Amino acid sequence: MPTPKAASSRTPDATRRSERSRRAIYDAALALVVEVGYARTTVEGIASRAGVGKQTIYRWWPSKSAVLLDAYLDLTGQAGQEAQAGREGGEERAEPTEPTEPTGATGATGPTEPAGLPDTGDLAADLKAVLRATVDELNDPRFEAPTRALTAEGVIDPELGARFVERLLEPQLRLYVRRLAAARDAGLLRPGADLRVAVELLVGPLTHRWLMRTRPLTHAYADELVDHVLQGIAPR
Amino acid sequence: MPTPKAASSRTPDATRRSERSRRAIYDAALALVVEVGYARTTVEGIASRAGVGKQTIYRWWPSKSAVLLDAYLDLTGQAGQEAQAGREGGEERAEPTEPTEPTGATGATGPTEPAGLPDTGDLAADLKAVLRATVDELNDPRFEAPTRALTAEGVIDPELGARFVERLLEPQLRLYVRRLAAARDAGLLRPGADLRVAVELLVGPLTHRWLMRTRPLTHAYADELVDHVLQGIAPR
Repeated sequence: MPTPKAASSRTPDATRRSERSRRAIYDAALALVVEVGYARTTVEGIASRAGVGKQTIYRWWPSKSAVLLDAYLDLTGQAGQEAQAGREGGEERAEPTEPTEPTGATGATGPTEPAGLPDTGDLAADLKAVLRATVDELNDPRFEAPTRALTAEGVIDPELGARFVERLLEPQLRLYVRRLAAARDAGLLRPGADLRVAVELLVGPLTHRWLMRTRPLTHAYADELVDHVLQGIAPR
Repeated sequence: MPTPKAASSRTPDATRRSERSRRAIYDAALALVVEVGYARTTVEGIASRAGVGKQTIYRWWPSKSAVLLDAYLDLTGQAGQEAQAGREGGEERAEPTEPTEPTGATGATGPTEPAGLPDTGDLAADLKAVLRATVDELNDPRFEAPTRALTAEGVIDPELGARFVERLLEPQLRLYVRRLAAARDAGLLRPGADLRVAVELLVGPLTHRWLMRTRPLTHAYADELVDHVLQGIAPR
């Protein structure tokens, strides 16, 4: 994956050009997977739409699935930065940085801070803030279409699915577990509660409702899930 | 959808031939959607594989999605009958009947009796029996492959997704809600509990784990979900 670091020995102009190509490749890859589906998206097609040579793509990525994974991580990284900027009062960062940890929506775990979920001391409020941000992201057309296209492919293709789960979903689930563990250690949850299952009870129904479109995905639903799950693991 | 009833004015032989064609069409449709995916499955392809004319299919169904939906309902109906036969001590029914209510796995709600979920008076045991049967079905290759193929397509195609939800998923969710309502009316659950959300908390995490393949789908997991959800809606 090309990063500013990887280009550090080049001239500033070359770095800018390479950053522009990377951006064009990401945009082309996500647009194609939405328009024609995963199966019909090809490295040739991405290159042609991005206005770069096929070899430029193969220099950086071994396969279309690798391009798509990085393109999607980049997209969700942007979402995470926007969410963080929002929480920090709209401050803009001096320059965009490479996301160091996935922050995206595949598997509907939503935008989170790389360092962890917010911890204001109010567990319910913190979980609701994160799940509500996930709801917003899943309802945002910029994310919805590529997330659906890639999730659908992961449902069929175990290898692609495993890569998204490993790089996106599991790191997110671990952030939730960590936040719950802090609350448990503070005596706010039942000592023996299975925190992994609790996290799946938050993320699973949200994803299910969104994937199947059974009912609208709302903040109220996010709140209900949090209240229900915390009730289930409250100290007896 | 062709049913024995629709053919009631015909001779027994014609009815048998028509039933044989219907079976061949269902088998061909499900095999194709697993092998080449939904997009590349065509009515022509189904007809050719089933050894029938294209017009035979169009006489009974308006589109490939209609064939696939009926084929899948038929498959899950068989699962429901097998599960019921198992519960009834292996008794065989005199003749197969058209499933009157979906009993299948799309959306991972699992095989259930048309008339409703079992009600032995032990809510936890009844829910565990149903969710464990769902786990078995989702882990059964006969169901897993077509369920994945059709679920993936429904994630991308809102119209197809809506049809599966309307004919398969929602009727199942209603059966769960009805079983929980009976328990609530018997004073076993909190009076104000949102039973629809409770049902999504059972079905959502199971589906999510299966779709994303995050961890093995086991009976123990089904039991944990039931225990957790009932804890959340127990009387305070």
